[in-house]
This record gives sequence, C-alpha cells and structure tokens, in this order.
Amino acid sequence: MKTIFTEDHRLQDGKAELIDGKLMPCFEMPRRAEIVIARVRDQKLGEVAAPEKFGTDPILRVHKPDFVRFIETAWGEWVQQHGSYDALPLNWIAPGMRRILPETIDGKLSYYSFDAGTPITAGTWRAAVAATEVAMTGMKLVKGGERGAFALCRPPGHHAGSDYYGGYCFFNNAAIAAQGFRDGGAARVAVLDVDYHHGNGTQEIFYKREDVLTISIHADPKQEFPFFLGHADERGEGRGEGFHLNLPLPWGIGWAEYGTALDTAMRRLTEFAPDAIVVSLGVDTFEKDPISKFKLKHEDYIRIGEAVAAAGKPTLFVMEGGYAVEELGVNAVNVLQGFES
Amino acid sequence: MKTIFTEDHRLQDGKAELIDGKLMPCFEMPRRAEIVIARVRDQKLGEVAAPEKFGTDPILRVHKPDFVRFIETAWGEWVQQHGSYDALPLNWIAPGMRRILPETIDGKLSYYSFDAGTPITAGTWRAAVAATEVAMTGMKLVKGGERGAFALCRPPGHHAGSDYYGGYCFFNNAAIAAQGFRDGGAARVAVLDVDYHHGNGTQEIFYKREDVLTISIHADPKQEFPFFLGHADERGEGRGEGFHLNLPLPWGIGWAEYGTALDTAMRRLTEFAPDAIVVSLGVDTFEKDPISKFKLKHEDYIRIGEAVAAAGKPTLFVMEGGYAVEELGVNAVNVLQGFES
Repeated sequence: MKTIFTEDHRLQDGKAELIDGKLMPCFEMPRRAEIVIARVRDQKLGEVAAPEKFGTDPILRVHKPDFVRFIETAWGEWVQQHGSYDALPLNWIAPGMRRILPETIDGKLSYYSFDAGTPITAGTWRAAVAATEVAMTGMKLVKGGERGAFALCRPPGHHAGSDYYGGYCFFNNAAIAAQGFRDGGAARVAVLDVDYHHGNGTQEIFYKREDVLTISIHADPKQEFPFFLGHADERGEGRGEGFHLNLPLPWGIGWAEYGTALDTAMRRLTEFAPDAIVVSLGVDTFEKDPISKFKLKHEDYIRIGEAVAAAGKPTLFVMEGGYAVEELGVNAVNVLQGFES
Repeated sequence: MKTIFTEDHRLQDGKAELIDGKLMPCFEMPRRAEIVIARVRDQKLGEVAAPEKFGTDPILRVHKPDFVRFIETAWGEWVQQHGSYDALPLNWIAPGMRRILPETIDGKLSYYSFDAGTPITAGTWRAAVAATEVAMTGMKLVKGGERGAFALCRPPGHHAGSDYYGGYCFFNNAAIAAQGFRDGGAARVAVLDVDYHHGNGTQEIFYKREDVLTISIHADPKQEFPFFLGHADERGEGRGEGFHLNLPLPWGIGWAEYGTALDTAMRRLTEFAPDAIVVSLGVDTFEKDPISKFKLKHEDYIRIGEAVAAAGKPTLFVMEGGYAVEELGVNAVNVLQGFES
C-alpha cells in the first residue's frame, strides 16, 4: 500500500492546549506523524509519495468559504493584536447567544472554534492545507485503481465541521476525500470513523445527505469529548435519515465490545454498497493512550484492518488521532497490514 | 450609604484564566474587593455591614436548579477526576451540536460554561453564594427605606445566565437582587448595567419579562467579549419586547459618547418608572483598565452616580467588573459619592 506524506505537517506545532485546567504541551504534536512514517518505512508497507497540489478547491467542497478564509487569515490578525504567541479563543457562544461574526480576532476565534485545545500558529494554514492535499492524493490513487492507500494526514480532521475547528482539527481531511470520491464519479461513499472520539465534523458535513454514509465507533459523548454529538439516536436528517450511524461505547471497554460494534458497523457499511470507503483512522482507542479510556491492544488493530478488508471495497485510510506517541506507528500500521493480509 | 461586604469573597481566588492564548493570573482577584472596601472606609462612605444569610432560595429564583447544584458539586467531582487544580472546561457546544448534559465533570463544565476564564476552585461555591447574600442584604436595606446601598459583591455576576457561568461570574447577583425587589413587592425594577462588558446574563434571565427592564451600556459585541449578545437590535421577546435596551459603543470612546448613551439609558429608565433600580456597577470603562478599551476618567464616575441619582428612585449598587485594580476603589466610590452628592 502506498503512503502519502509530507513534512509540511511540522508547520502545525502548537505550544499548548488547555486540558485538565492547565495549559499542557500539545498532545497533537509533529512527532506523532514521524513515528508513523518511520514504522511505515520500517515495515516496508510500500512506496511513500509526496502529495500533489490541489489548492483550496477540494476544501471549499465541504467547508464554508468564510471559514476557509478565516483559517487563512487568522494568524496575521492575531499577531497584529496580540503578538506571535499561539492563538487560542477565550470564550464561546452560550445558550441563547447569537452566532453573529465579530470584527475582532478574539471574537472570530470564538465564533469559529469549539475548544481551547487547538492553537492556530504561524504554520497552521499551510499545514492544514497540506493535510487536505495528502488526503486528496490518496483519494486519487484509490480512484485510479489502488485497492488501498494511506493518507498520513496531520493535523487530523474529523472534528472540523463545515464552519468550525477544534479537537486538533482545522479542515476535515476525511470528508474532503469522501467528497473527492463523489466528485470523481463514485455514487456512494462510506466513511468509517474508528477514532476514540466521535467524528462530529464528518457527521455534521454529511448529515443531510444519503450519498455519504458516516459510521462512527467512539467513546460515549456522555463521558467523552466532544460531549455534544455522537449519541446513538443521531441517524441523519431529511434525505440523510438512516445514513448516519453512531456506535458509542463506554469507558473501559476492550476488544470484545469493540469487535461487536465493528461487526455492526461493517454490516451496515456492506449493506450500503459503497463504491469507496474512507477510514478515519484514529488509534487513540489504544490501552495506553494518555487521554482516552478504551483498552485495545496492538493485535486488535490488525483485526480492524481485516474487518475493513472483508468489505472488499477500494479503501482510503486517513490518519486521525492517537496520543500514545511512541506506539502510534505500530498501531496505525497494524491496521494497514491487517487490511493487506 | 451603607456597604455590604464579607471576607468570604476571598474564597474565590483562581490561579489562572485563558486570555491572549496564555493562562494568565486571574484579572478577577481578591485584591479587587479589598481596594474597594478600603476606599469605602477611607472616604467614610458609611457603615460597612456583613450580609445576612439567605441560603440558595434567592439564587433559585433566577437560576435553574440543575445549574445551582452543579456549581455546588463541581469542585468535588473535579478533584476526584483531576486533582485539586482549578477547574476549567476544555470545549464547548459547536453549532449544530446538542445540549445534552454529560455525566463526567469535563463534560459538565463544557455544558454549563461559556469561557475558559472562570476557574471553579475549592472556595467558589461559598464565595458565589456569599456574593448573592451581599446583594440580597443590600436589596433588603433599600426595600426597607434606604435611598441607596452598595453591595460589594465578588465574584461578580452579570455574565451568569439562568444556567451557565462565565466571564468571572457564577451567580447573577444583580438579577437575584432585582428578583428580590420584585418578590418583596416592587411592581417594576430596572437594572442599569454600566460595566464595560454587556450584561448578557441579566438580559437572558429577564428577556421575556416586562417587569424587569434591563439596560446595558457596553463595548460593542462585534469587538468585545462576550461577542455574541448585546447588539442594539436586541429588545426583548414576547411580553419582554421593548423592555430590554442595549447601547453598544465602539472601542476608544470617552465621556462625550458615554454620557450621551447614559442620557438615553436614563430617559428610558425614567419612562419605565421603576420602584427600584439595580446598578450593575462595573468600572472597567476606565481609561487604564488592562482588558478594556473605553477612556473614562476618575471624574466621569461621579457623573454616572449623579445621573442615576437624578432618577430619584431607591437604588442598589452591585459591584461587577473593573481590573485596573489599584484604581478600582476611587472609581467605584466616585459613582456612589456622585449618587449621594
């Protein structure tokens, strides 16, 4: 399997995120991708290719223009107001408040964000665009006949909605790739999100559509970030009703429960008969992940790959979360090797 | 004029707030109240009295029971999960997300808060309840015949809504006092908010009611916190329509513009013919305030007091914001002396 990768991911290198009441060094750090690409090479998974240039057109297929423009210009506005320390918002829209775009950078950060863990830095725009190009290049490979490809995206994307960022995500790489498949002629695309956290952005983007099935297996939002989306009763709206499946699981579960949910997911996915699959590949379900509470083991990731392979569809893997940094490579590549075996 | 004050305010002593992308020492600090009470005494404004006990009944008149219970229990739950460092939330409800109460403390913080600048600490509950008792004791004095009283509340309150906290505020002291006047027999109560920031909580609490007029003169939310409420077109809903007045002003204004807005406010207030006035007394409109951008001078605060006095109504002053700490006393007491002159 080919891997798409660029060093541009290093341009997103935030200093700190707000977690546990403190500003801690960002869990979402450049070393995450370095560990994974090292494992890809070490295991001789296949060729590592640089992304092609796609510009912002594919981003604008799923994100609103004002939001894309904001991500491009936020750092410049922030520096003018506050100097060149990472930009974090300070407040959000309380119940009953009005979503009217403010004119000042602090207000814009508040308007477009939903957490205090996703710093905008000098390199955010370039890194975030590059990650979408990694995803689109992988999509093109799969559309061109490859059985599978690995888009080693960083920063991740699945928490980014049509016009908001957060959860370490700016642009929704998986959603952009899924839309890319559609625009390239696929009638139906399935996104399977196995990240520990609900793929709220992906769901939001496709929630009223029946041509992109989204399935997310994740920690129950009653217990876990992002808290306010990903409940089992969310099934889509309008034409999208029935085309969005949430499989929340409680803290502490291991493979027994996870495998059962994955079976359910793959049954629904197979029934949908997609022309292509996009896997939002988070490996923060790992037992040693520092910010998560599932108990998957190294070998379980092989089984995830095998289960996806059993659907027999062209598949793009898009890297999402995972914060047990030194073991990210093994877990992510285990999924890919399980798929290929 | 009597001042109501208690040392219990010191129990709210947060370590840090998220501002300008960094965790900075809290601008809303115990020294704020100490400076003001020192000035009250120095100027021989009048007797300083301790608050009576009111318990939570007056709080529950304007805040939802689940929210009050949350403020009471949050610290205990936080310590169990994270240890005894100040509790700050990590994310909020993005557009399209669902306001469903999570079971875990991080989720609850996210559900009930709207900023990362309002730490919940070991003493928050006791300090916040004490501040409401300060306000209620002042209300009782005014109801009992005093022309004016000063409730030296800390933490402040005007950003706290019926079921959310933020902006350094937990319970809405001014709203609780206004409701106290109503429950004590006043037919109509006016709340005049002269804090630099929009009194979003007070507005939200009374927005559908015509018995409590709210007027706020504040920095335009297009430019300034809380960003998403306080626009000039917000006039109330249902029976409350026309009973809520917002007078947003741009960064950089001085007395000329402020005085004009205050005239407008007092005309509307006088027309309403309230039985009592509650003034949300923030003095962060001061030219040297570190987080604000109005340019009022010491002597302007005397004029604010004079303007309120001209309405000729029993008036309770409730302390809100102001972060030019060493000059808070002069500015706050200038308002009170202007009222008495």
